[in-house]
Amino acid sequence: MDASRPVERYSNFTPLVLPGRAWPDRRIVSAPRWLSTDLRDGNQSLANPMSPARKLRMFELLIDIGYKEIEVGFPVASQDDHDFVRLLIEEDRIPDDVWISALVPARDELIERTIQCLSGAPRATLHLYNATAPLFRRVVFGMDREQCRELAVRGTELVKKYADKELREGDFRFQYSPELFNETEADFSLEVCEAVMDVWEPAADRPIILNFPTTVERSLPSVFADQIEWLDRNLSRREHVCLSIHPHNDRGTGVASAELALLAGAQRIEGCLFGNGERAGNVCLVTLGMNMFSHGVDPGIDFSDIDRIRHTVELCNEIPVHPRHPYGGDLVYTSFSGSHQDAIKKGFDDLERQAAEEGSSVDEVPWQMPYLPIDPKDVGRTYEAIVRITTQSGKGGVAYVMNARYGMRLPKELQRDFSTVVQASAELLGAELSPEQVWALFEKEYLLPQGMPGELYVAGGRIAATLHLDGAGEHDARTIGAKLSAWGIDVRTVHRAARPAGQDVESTVYAECKFDAGIVWGAGVDSSVVGAALSAIGVALRRSGVPESMITTGPA
Amino acid sequence: MDASRPVERYSNFTPLVLPGRAWPDRRIVSAPRWLSTDLRDGNQSLANPMSPARKLRMFELLIDIGYKEIEVGFPVASQDDHDFVRLLIEEDRIPDDVWISALVPARDELIERTIQCLSGAPRATLHLYNATAPLFRRVVFGMDREQCRELAVRGTELVKKYADKELREGDFRFQYSPELFNETEADFSLEVCEAVMDVWEPAADRPIILNFPTTVERSLPSVFADQIEWLDRNLSRREHVCLSIHPHNDRGTGVASAELALLAGAQRIEGCLFGNGERAGNVCLVTLGMNMFSHGVDPGIDFSDIDRIRHTVELCNEIPVHPRHPYGGDLVYTSFSGSHQDAIKKGFDDLERQAAEEGSSVDEVPWQMPYLPIDPKDVGRTYEAIVRITTQSGKGGVAYVMNARYGMRLPKELQRDFSTVVQASAELLGAELSPEQVWALFEKEYLLPQGMPGELYVAGGRIAATLHLDGAGEHDARTIGAKLSAWGIDVRTVHRAARPAGQDVESTVYAECKFDAGIVWGAGVDSSVVGAALSAIGVALRRSGVPESMITTGPA
Repeated sequence: MDASRPVERYSNFTPLVLPGRAWPDRRIVSAPRWLSTDLRDGNQSLANPMSPARKLRMFELLIDIGYKEIEVGFPVASQDDHDFVRLLIEEDRIPDDVWISALVPARDELIERTIQCLSGAPRATLHLYNATAPLFRRVVFGMDREQCRELAVRGTELVKKYADKELREGDFRFQYSPELFNETEADFSLEVCEAVMDVWEPAADRPIILNFPTTVERSLPSVFADQIEWLDRNLSRREHVCLSIHPHNDRGTGVASAELALLAGAQRIEGCLFGNGERAGNVCLVTLGMNMFSHGVDPGIDFSDIDRIRHTVELCNEIPVHPRHPYGGDLVYTSFSGSHQDAIKKGFDDLERQAAEEGSSVDEVPWQMPYLPIDPKDVGRTYEAIVRITTQSGKGGVAYVMNARYGMRLPKELQRDFSTVVQASAELLGAELSPEQVWALFEKEYLLPQGMPGELYVAGGRIAATLHLDGAGEHDARTIGAKLSAWGIDVRTVHRAARPAGQDVESTVYAECKFDAGIVWGAGVDSSVVGAALSAIGVALRRSGVPESMITTGPA
Repeated sequence: MDASRPVERYSNFTPLVLPGRAWPDRRIVSAPRWLSTDLRDGNQSLANPMSPARKLRMFELLIDIGYKEIEVGFPVASQDDHDFVRLLIEEDRIPDDVWISALVPARDELIERTIQCLSGAPRATLHLYNATAPLFRRVVFGMDREQCRELAVRGTELVKKYADKELREGDFRFQYSPELFNETEADFSLEVCEAVMDVWEPAADRPIILNFPTTVERSLPSVFADQIEWLDRNLSRREHVCLSIHPHNDRGTGVASAELALLAGAQRIEGCLFGNGERAGNVCLVTLGMNMFSHGVDPGIDFSDIDRIRHTVELCNEIPVHPRHPYGGDLVYTSFSGSHQDAIKKGFDDLERQAAEEGSSVDEVPWQMPYLPIDPKDVGRTYEAIVRITTQSGKGGVAYVMNARYGMRLPKELQRDFSTVVQASAELLGAELSPEQVWALFEKEYLLPQGMPGELYVAGGRIAATLHLDGAGEHDARTIGAKLSAWGIDVRTVHRAARPAGQDVESTVYAECKFDAGIVWGAGVDSSVVGAALSAIGVALRRSGVPESMITTGPA
């Protein structure tokens, strides 16, 4: 920091005193009501706001994955928004269980125009707001508390009047937001909300949504949770109030603020897909939903094809989703480091073992997996891209690629042997290796090149080889033992577990040959097990450094 | 959700019971110790790990902005990392107050190699870890609790032995991490840490760093804070322990986890710049630091040129920083919506007013600003890009661009008049307007085109005009009044506040002319005030719809 110490221009927040707070002891056990404001708060934050076609595409996505409350615009602030709301209504595009809503500031003529814009909607929520924070009262509006409260009261009165007149045919809901709630004195937020409710007279058949925005996120999520629990305790007519929150993400804690507020009594969350919205964004509805999912709580939204959601959002917003965005980024199911890759491989083996023991499918086994908070399959991602091979990769990743991509289930000792080959190559290249490159390395190192003779033996002397048979039966093992022994090779066979049904019928043999200098590996693939074994031993021989002159192409 | 209900594969976490938790009532009042793991955890998560040149550039950035603890690699997992650590030591690149550290798993031969790698470092921390979570004990290592604990104990014994032998010349610190801490039984984490401390025997002159990673973020940040407070209460030899945390971001709550853990007793945070790291990343050190800054707490790190930091990070990681990343993204100081722009403009006016009242500079006034949690200047961002003009913009944004870019301080009524012109144009274009486009619109609408005669009058009749004089004195006003009155124009003058010194000397006049059909605006810029006034009135006349035939180029 330089000498002028700009940090001194800023001050800490003053937390609320909340004796006996209950929220830290609670858990999230069910989904809240969700409202997507992609088409309003999201759209107004775009350098290039959505065209009508892009808006429609977003609207249809939101409906398709299960959102039931959608804020569709700010009609008095933009003709585009106004026209889009009219289009939805006039083309009858709002499904039976979906509520659209429109935002309006507490000003007489604007309320009237917004109500008219919503006219004919089967179900609509009018969302009235005014700024209640002291900075705004003083600097932006030049109002005292009473004038500020009266603005909300007058707005609510107008809504009530016009709503009765214009919107009698459809279902109508009312939402009020004291904007900048998190920067407003707690008692004043409550005072304004109570005054609004005095006008609206909420009841079982005329509930109210009171929505509390952290318009700009300024304090710790725990402070916000305290604010919400305080409201939850102090709001009157609580049973007729839907306590809603609208977190932003200026401190990078929007998701946490929403979650802790849920514990504190919030019943509804407003946000955007992948956290679009003013500045650092609105809270991300995808992350919130998938966080619940990962705890066994159904969010009620279908994220099973997360890439489709992501691509539509990217198309509509013209802003990419970051590669590290939780649940949806390109890199979040990718493991680059060797120890991680190794653990994940063991985790999958364990799931398979559990499924086999219980006679169930792997998809029914409770998800417990190193380094993967959820099964990528549950959001429609495949597993293939998860392991990438770099200088940081160990045997686990290499083994995974060889198995998942090429059906080669390498013995553990060979995994280790091969991973040193892979690592050296990655360091030489200074880049990630593709699965194809990994395979090419394996082929070059352990498999017989095309066009080479299939059977190679040391002239004279006996070889001790342990053959790891992948996909061979007992009978094959006996045949190999007998044949190779006659040819001067002592063989011990190790069976790999049977291949899953449906895989190809070629046999793979990994040969672990013991020479004076140590163990040398070779591998062979052939339609006959014996052929595969001979190839494997042949490669090991070549790799062992036994002089060429001692190798012949035929039994000793 | 489809019929198989994958959500049922997941289960909720079981929170710790923590009677009388203290953390929710605390505030963050000072910065923790920071460790950057950009070169270790960050690097190992890259598709293309950093080259030595990129590593060096990152290292130098980290030092330059003030990090004192830097994890520089995982030498036994990668030859590249090993070589980079040696380069730092052998080229004497580690400043006097900086500690490098290297990660190593608790395995004998790896510890020895890592110690050798650190040999000759002036100050080094060896960071030993083993996984302690039940899933890892069972699935990855096949160990019971005792074996797992003994692995950590044996590792610590080796560190102690080798450290005495190899690293006697430099300062040496020891760090232990029970990996997957957040998924480990609390009592077992404590048991392992205590066993490690029994070996290390921490004391005033041989402290220990105990580091608790949320290796994969799985639960609410409040649950993590409870875990940390529980440790803070129960760890023995607490005065010699630096309680460190290492949060990841799988649930999008890494920043919140770190902050709540700080309240709960954590003293040190490990993370990466802009949240690079495995999957959804490590916690973002920039966000954490700037969050403190925004509360008046000096983070001890210099973020005053955030774009330089960002560009270096992007270069080294080859991953872009998201446009909505808090504090550093392209869009986070940008306001698109009219009401936001208007409020920000008033906020700046208020800061200037306060500064004038106090006779201080604007930079000394406490920062209180609608929609901007910090002054962009404090991170080296300029204000120019903040307001963009879209269909959602209102008069505030338009007024801001006209003033900040072109020095035109439009009267409020003209702001409103012009903003409808701008909005219509943005809707027509379906795109954002650049400041240049806004200016072109203003010029076309309110200023006299080049090459047009400078003086235009209605033939006969009198015109009533209110002239808003920007940059003119009392004398100018009297001159105009006399001249124009003689020419059939009744003039009332309104003075705009004096222009700030140093601005150019051309006069600007905004003419608010009253016709039967209503108010029509024009503007004029000229080296003489009279010339500017005449131009302005002339434009208003043309815009008023007065027939061309009635306009002449000379006094009536």
